[in-house]
Amino acid sequence: MIKALAALEPKSALVEFEFERPELGKDDVEIEVSHCGLCHSDMSMINNEWGASSYPLVPGHEVVGKVVAIGANVNKHSIGDRVGLGWHAGYCDTCQYCDTGEHNLCAQSQATIIGRHGGFASHVQASQNAVVALPEGLSSEDAGPLFCGGITVYNPLVQYDIKPTDRVAVIGIGGLGHIALQFLAAWGCEVTAFTSSESKAEEAKTLGASHVLDSTNPDALKAARGRFDMILCTVNVSLNWAGYLSTLAPKGRLHFVGVVVDPVAISVNQLIGNQLQISGSPVGSPAVIDEMLQFAARHNIKPQVEVFKKHQANEAIEKLESGKMRYRAVIEFSQ
Amino acid sequence: MIKALAALEPKSALVEFEFERPELGKDDVEIEVSHCGLCHSDMSMINNEWGASSYPLVPGHEVVGKVVAIGANVNKHSIGDRVGLGWHAGYCDTCQYCDTGEHNLCAQSQATIIGRHGGFASHVQASQNAVVALPEGLSSEDAGPLFCGGITVYNPLVQYDIKPTDRVAVIGIGGLGHIALQFLAAWGCEVTAFTSSESKAEEAKTLGASHVLDSTNPDALKAARGRFDMILCTVNVSLNWAGYLSTLAPKGRLHFVGVVVDPVAISVNQLIGNQLQISGSPVGSPAVIDEMLQFAARHNIKPQVEVFKKHQANEAIEKLESGKMRYRAVIEFSQ
Repeated sequence: MIKALAALEPKSALVEFEFERPELGKDDVEIEVSHCGLCHSDMSMINNEWGASSYPLVPGHEVVGKVVAIGANVNKHSIGDRVGLGWHAGYCDTCQYCDTGEHNLCAQSQATIIGRHGGFASHVQASQNAVVALPEGLSSEDAGPLFCGGITVYNPLVQYDIKPTDRVAVIGIGGLGHIALQFLAAWGCEVTAFTSSESKAEEAKTLGASHVLDSTNPDALKAARGRFDMILCTVNVSLNWAGYLSTLAPKGRLHFVGVVVDPVAISVNQLIGNQLQISGSPVGSPAVIDEMLQFAARHNIKPQVEVFKKHQANEAIEKLESGKMRYRAVIEFSQ
Repeated sequence: MIKALAALEPKSALVEFEFERPELGKDDVEIEVSHCGLCHSDMSMINNEWGASSYPLVPGHEVVGKVVAIGANVNKHSIGDRVGLGWHAGYCDTCQYCDTGEHNLCAQSQATIIGRHGGFASHVQASQNAVVALPEGLSSEDAGPLFCGGITVYNPLVQYDIKPTDRVAVIGIGGLGHIALQFLAAWGCEVTAFTSSESKAEEAKTLGASHVLDSTNPDALKAARGRFDMILCTVNVSLNWAGYLSTLAPKGRLHFVGVVVDPVAISVNQLIGNQLQISGSPVGSPAVIDEMLQFAARHNIKPQVEVFKKHQANEAIEKLESGKMRYRAVIEFSQ
């Protein structure tokens, strides 16, 4: 039996839940979970905000642990390997995107917590191709949040060929933003943090921001006119988008990694004038996750985590929901 | 004296207008105009739609002619050269964008018909760097519209590294779109035209489209789901943007070259899911114009033009305003 924490219905607290260990697929590995991060999308799934949830729902898609069983075809991982698993637990492995190393864009990709049980559990199974080995130098406690929050903000640097000479701003210093600042600083960029929180302003500097701008001050946007090559938006609320676009340099990009709920209204004239672009991206492929982990280990980049015991999982959820988490919760599952 | 056609007040017909020949700047050339295209933005300027017009207003920024005088510093052009001039008549020549060959993004660029008299004239002056030599094989009659309409649709292929294996769709088969189809076909792309006009559907195929989709038919958008690497939008009206975004392949781009007047409302969730992007761009730099002219000459690409005599300029304007132009008007100024 696999011992897990599950929501039995939408918006309910997590309770202990056991289920039969599924038969391991030929291409799959089984991970004994030591730690699992808690991500905003776990809450969206617990609350069935996307209409994609089925119950009992076992959340958790920032999984770290040890390989304890492998299918007959598995050659990428061995028993005993320390590994991690993120948003995707499998891909079709045959489409154009899988063929070219863009697995996260595979239309048949399987999400770790949609239609299957996630990492808030003693064990979790996933396709070998979705599982990535952890480099030495990254602790199991810290590594989890890199598998969703981390790759979400790292992948755009790779996708859009961000250069160390670029000026990049981050909107929102939270679970995603505080990792983004560290990656960007290590990447060599001139890093600016937009935040409305005075206490976060100081912290943003220790995380790598050279400049901090108060996003509630219209003069701050005016003063930054034409400055940024990329703005990474990690929040999900509506902001003064025209104002932020005005802070982009020619050819600059406003990139969304947080799902802003309301439509974003764009002036085409503003896009055309300075050849601006607007984009969004979902997590990243296993190859980019692997590269990110090496980069994080080499530069000592790690999420700022608060570790909760398994029986404290609901406290972690409440703290994340209240907006007080600084910045990422990790639940310890190892016995 | 320079003999021109000018609007004396907003929305007025063009009348004959003479003005003193300005002293030629050291870095400038004077062009004796043989032909000048008529572009939608000439009408916007005549009608003061952008609040940037001053009167008498001499329109015309798709200028073709012969160099008849050069300033003391001019080394790029010689008297007698056949040349063209587009939206920009000069740049600062010292900023980061000018330095790197992106003159069209120079914040100090000077528009040919803003604060100076344009190409609906016997002569026009411009900075040598904004003037581009015409290759043999491009007739003076055909070349004009490439300098604004042509470069507007060609530049995105260069800016976004469009590949011959890409599938590209064009929204709107008009002054811009009919040139875009030709460039894309010669570029090796799989070309699709979106049009609601049955008569244009046939023509789109002769211009290079492999597929034509009726943009008023919702089933056509559904059938094209996930197909295009880029959609080039040449119209200025509001369309079903979510529907068009759904026809983009992962990493696909919806690119605007027509100034859509109403804000475009975007779902961030839709952008993130397939890593989509939305962008816009203004004309192109002299280096890209030069490259485009060579490419057009080599592939026998030319706008479909209707040539008007100088005294018929107002007829051309009326026809363009009525939407009946197929596809581009050129006014003949040579005597």
